[in-house]
Amino acid sequence: MSDLRDLTDQMRAFSEERDWVQFHDPKSLLLALVGEVGELSELMQWLPAGEIVGRAAEEPLASRLGEELADVQLYLVRLADVLGVDLAEAARLKLSTGRRRFPTETVRGEAPLKS
Amino acid sequence: MSDLRDLTDQMRAFSEERDWVQFHDPKSLLLALVGEVGELSELMQWLPAGEIVGRAAEEPLASRLGEELADVQLYLVRLADVLGVDLAEAARLKLSTGRRRFPTETVRGEAPLKS
Amino acid sequence: MSDLRDLTDQMRAFSEERDWVQFHDPKSLLLALVGEVGELSELMQWLPAGEIVGRAAEEPLASRLGEELADVQLYLVRLADVLGVDLAEAARLKLSTGRRRFPTETVRGEAPLKS
Amino acid sequence: MSDLRDLTDQMRAFSEERDWVQFHDPKSLLLALVGEVGELSELMQWLPAGEIVGRAAEEPLASRLGEELADVQLYLVRLADVLGVDLAEAARLKLSTGRRRFPTETVRGEAPLKS
Repeated sequence: MSDLRDLTDQMRAFSEERDWVQFHDPKSLLLALVGEVGELSELMQWLPAGEIVGRAAEEPLASRLGEELADVQLYLVRLADVLGVDLAEAARLKLSTGRRRFPTETVRGEAPLKS
Repeated sequence: MSDLRDLTDQMRAFSEERDWVQFHDPKSLLLALVGEVGELSELMQWLPAGEIVGRAAEEPLASRLGEELADVQLYLVRLADVLGVDLAEAARLKLSTGRRRFPTETVRGEAPLKS
Repeated sequence: MSDLRDLTDQMRAFSEERDWVQFHDPKSLLLALVGEVGELSELMQWLPAGEIVGRAAEEPLASRLGEELADVQLYLVRLADVLGVDLAEAARLKLSTGRRRFPTETVRGEAPLKS
Repeated sequence: MSDLRDLTDQMRAFSEERDWVQFHDPKSLLLALVGEVGELSELMQWLPAGEIVGRAAEEPLASRLGEELADVQLYLVRLADVLGVDLAEAARLKLSTGRRRFPTETVRGEAPLKS
């Protein structure tokens, strides 16, 4: 069972039942996703980088991170659905592209910096 | 088979094979996700809101949107993995919370505005 | 009087007085900026695109937008300061580049789409 | 002379001369700002946190950071202008609020964590 398909179907039903499809144009959904990415940032921004993984294993941070990661995921499947993109297929395709673009022998230990 | 679990495992292997795990602390991964959300924004920002869904069905935009949505998804599963969050479970839990928090009879057609 | 210089100096003093400079590494400040961009998004995401400017002229939205735009501005001057960038000079330089890159006669009425 | 006012006036003229005002509704401008925040993230994401300030003092990173910080600043003044917000005034007001909300004696050395 594809859980991305399942989440997509559930978010579509959730939106239809509340008559919220009218608000779900792509730009608005993307801003909603940005809002959730912002909430995720606020949970981590002032924590020392080296302590986040440890604190993320304990409450209350564990639950809060789960909620915000979930919100990003839910708006992402909803946005992909509205745009007609099969997110699971797109992700698998991008992974294949990434494997070819960054051969293990040439990039090992080197961060692919943008400039 | 859970495709979020599958993508998570593949991204972990992808990172390990390239010795990139050293770069994947939560803040850096979140910034990488922000970078991909930014690329997604750049694809849509100047398109008329009412034309995006139509154009998203045609090339080259269809493939470009798929790639950027995929990049957001891949960094999201990677970030959740590093933080120890079961993303599929968290998303299902958040959907349940959303259904209780926004009963269909009381919120129908009303956008849940923040203030 | 440069108000960007003034805001930069005030944010530096604000941070030093609270012993918060220790938290202000570039990645953390950028995540804080992302958090504020997210809050700005949440104010606008479900409003009809054509109504935002009108509503922005009235309370309570006018004040809320001012607060979130201000937060983005304050973290932006702080981040530039920590990175050693003269923000006013950089903005003027970028405007000059933009004028040369997009000559009025060739781009008039055409959005510069990314692909 | 207020440089935020000056940048605002120049961005308005820049937009009018190119007949781009038609594209500058608030949601689209905010997505453009998100795009630039994303480019800024991509410059820093894989750099070790402790090395960014040092590298930011040298080329090519110094110029690249200046450009992306400038882009964020330019879209920020443009968005504030379209929304009718006096950005310099809003930032000064927010700083005053911050000083009252976080008295130096009570918050010294403590990051204001969100939960």
